[in-house]
Amino acid sequence: MGTSMTDGFEQMWRDLAPLGRSAVSGGYFRQPFTSVDSELRSWFVDQCAVRGLQVEADGNGNLVAWWSPSGSAAEDAVLIGSHLDSVLDGGAYDGPLGVVSSLAAVDLLRERGVAPSRPIAVGAFAEEEGSRFGIACLGSRLASGSTTPEAATELRDRDGLPLMDAMSSAGLEPALGRAEWLDRVGTYFELHVEQGRDLVDRDAPVGLATRIWPHGRYRFDFTGNANHAGTTRMEDRHDPMLSFAMTALGADRVALASGQRATFGRVEVAPNGTNAIPSRVTAWLDARGDSETQLLRLVSEIKRQGAERADRDGTRLTVTAESVSGEVAFDPLLTSTLRDGLAASWGEVPVIPTMAGHDAGILAAAGVPTAMLFVRNPTGVSHSPAEHAEMADCLTGVEALAEALEVLVA
Amino acid sequence: MGTSMTDGFEQMWRDLAPLGRSAVSGGYFRQPFTSVDSELRSWFVDQCAVRGLQVEADGNGNLVAWWSPSGSAAEDAVLIGSHLDSVLDGGAYDGPLGVVSSLAAVDLLRERGVAPSRPIAVGAFAEEEGSRFGIACLGSRLASGSTTPEAATELRDRDGLPLMDAMSSAGLEPALGRAEWLDRVGTYFELHVEQGRDLVDRDAPVGLATRIWPHGRYRFDFTGNANHAGTTRMEDRHDPMLSFAMTALGADRVALASGQRATFGRVEVAPNGTNAIPSRVTAWLDARGDSETQLLRLVSEIKRQGAERADRDGTRLTVTAESVSGEVAFDPLLTSTLRDGLAASWGEVPVIPTMAGHDAGILAAAGVPTAMLFVRNPTGVSHSPAEHAEMADCLTGVEALAEALEVLVA
Repeated sequence: MGTSMTDGFEQMWRDLAPLGRSAVSGGYFRQPFTSVDSELRSWFVDQCAVRGLQVEADGNGNLVAWWSPSGSAAEDAVLIGSHLDSVLDGGAYDGPLGVVSSLAAVDLLRERGVAPSRPIAVGAFAEEEGSRFGIACLGSRLASGSTTPEAATELRDRDGLPLMDAMSSAGLEPALGRAEWLDRVGTYFELHVEQGRDLVDRDAPVGLATRIWPHGRYRFDFTGNANHAGTTRMEDRHDPMLSFAMTALGADRVALASGQRATFGRVEVAPNGTNAIPSRVTAWLDARGDSETQLLRLVSEIKRQGAERADRDGTRLTVTAESVSGEVAFDPLLTSTLRDGLAASWGEVPVIPTMAGHDAGILAAAGVPTAMLFVRNPTGVSHSPAEHAEMADCLTGVEALAEALEVLVA
Repeated sequence: MGTSMTDGFEQMWRDLAPLGRSAVSGGYFRQPFTSVDSELRSWFVDQCAVRGLQVEADGNGNLVAWWSPSGSAAEDAVLIGSHLDSVLDGGAYDGPLGVVSSLAAVDLLRERGVAPSRPIAVGAFAEEEGSRFGIACLGSRLASGSTTPEAATELRDRDGLPLMDAMSSAGLEPALGRAEWLDRVGTYFELHVEQGRDLVDRDAPVGLATRIWPHGRYRFDFTGNANHAGTTRMEDRHDPMLSFAMTALGADRVALASGQRATFGRVEVAPNGTNAIPSRVTAWLDARGDSETQLLRLVSEIKRQGAERADRDGTRLTVTAESVSGEVAFDPLLTSTLRDGLAASWGEVPVIPTMAGHDAGILAAAGVPTAMLFVRNPTGVSHSPAEHAEMADCLTGVEALAEALEVLVA
């Protein structure tokens, strides 16, 4: 393993460690187009400059940095990368590990004197988590055209600030829409910390991905009648909190019984006063299914149970799908090429599915041959301050990423 | 009915109508020590000035305005009044009706040429609803010493701002602690919109109060393990949202079965992201019981059920009593005097209990002989934009208040 690469990786990791970290929880708050996001972008631009990579900003908040050796083709680039933003109170690895590993893999190829026949680009996508504007993978969706600029201009954060205003006030020049750089990309390969314990069970530091589960976000609006918490008899109430509570318990039971996933992780109550029965409870369902049919069944059943309880409570339920992603199969030819390429030095690399969405899923759906590489996570925990990967596994991830790149650009 | 009093009442009501009103819901947001609160205070001070009442600010945020006719005693005053603050998205009547009616009753006594033998004071108490700092009747609690200045300086609003800073930035000069004016008060008589339909059922425009149900606010902190909403198997979760949901449903069932009241109207989730299982759900229980034993049983049973579910979910529950008020019986001698006094012109005035807390309850607990007068609310709805009282009933309320005052100060 190249010592210089190792030093470079560890230094980058140390540089990023304090940015957006909560002293209270130890978790990260790296929402897009905030001051900490600006620091992360500056850091990325600086790292690219040090390496002589040409950075492009695409008007959707994404940054793409190019290594185009003379003699390499102008198109059919191999894009590697991930994202720098986090969920609210998230971990250090989800996103940044892919970006840092990509830069370190470039270092490693150069140490080895590899002269790529195809351009290599390192990308940092915006708002992958959807933590601020509610749509996951917003940057790659805009760049690939799967979210339109018209739809995106309607997005607002929790304070009511429109996306474009948030971008402008962060010093960006928003120009939403399909990105020209996408035409120059022939392959996307994303490294990511595993969000589960598959690799722990298989005793493997890295693995390749087969596919992404279909998943979606659905807003459940329960409306009832606000009233005094003390004077209103229980039997006279139309309390939307109860309708929500039953729906959350039902979602858990249905997902457990069917082997799918259903989570209500975000709730907003109006007026949210201790001595007032709420007038409205809004809760967001995150649902994932093993197949599109399973996802559809899961969400239908949760809606049915919610509507039934709302009916009993004399409240009303409306459900809005905020974003739904179909199943994504990563490119089988690319994945088997990478698997064979890694087999020589790595032995058998496991191939596992992922229940999480990724920018790789968006680009795959847009027709870009795409693959993913996961790095082992000892606890399996993600979207939490407890998310972790051992440094040795991270460095193994860089080695595997570089090895795979060599296969692709040889 | 004095035309001049009627005009005065209607004008005051029109003046207050726009202050803190949400154009969206039609409800009121009149939190203490905000800009709208400053407008309400200025309005009160102006109204007192017009009437030649001497306004005192007591350092706890309360305003007390004095009518001390020469010849009247310096002590043993009759305090009337209520509060100007509202719950979040509350109604127009809860609080302001008592203040406006008190000023109008002073007008009516003067029109009638009454020369009081005791001073009359009109009070506007601060943070009666506890909508900002979490403790209901904070102003009267501080003035009467039932909340200590030490405890109050620890209070923070939802943005983390301490009480004293909020008061200072609203231009007040905080000096928390037992108020000297309380020594000059011999009786407190509060007019309030009814928060229920008792008077509707009895076909009576006004009624007197017998007692206030014991009640309390309890913070339920459910903590679990944050994790990825997509990748974490349902069976591996420790999701505090589920523990809360079951507790909220249990509270409803227990209160319904026992004829008491239990409400979870306020919830805060961390990190509150759609794709993260929460690490913490904090929910506030508002509980009211027909007796102190009933309240204790109710809260114990809700805690027991919550702890049981938390145990099953692998989460943790801690419960903190934020404020608990025992049963308050209003002064029977005072109430029967008022009842008899009103009987001549009003016939039989109903005497009804209240499940809501009031500043009158705090002063009664502090040893001040206290009574309350309710004005009919056609819908019974309160703590909601739908709260209402007919103008004719409001004016009847002023008449009754003035009549009762005459009995007391004759």
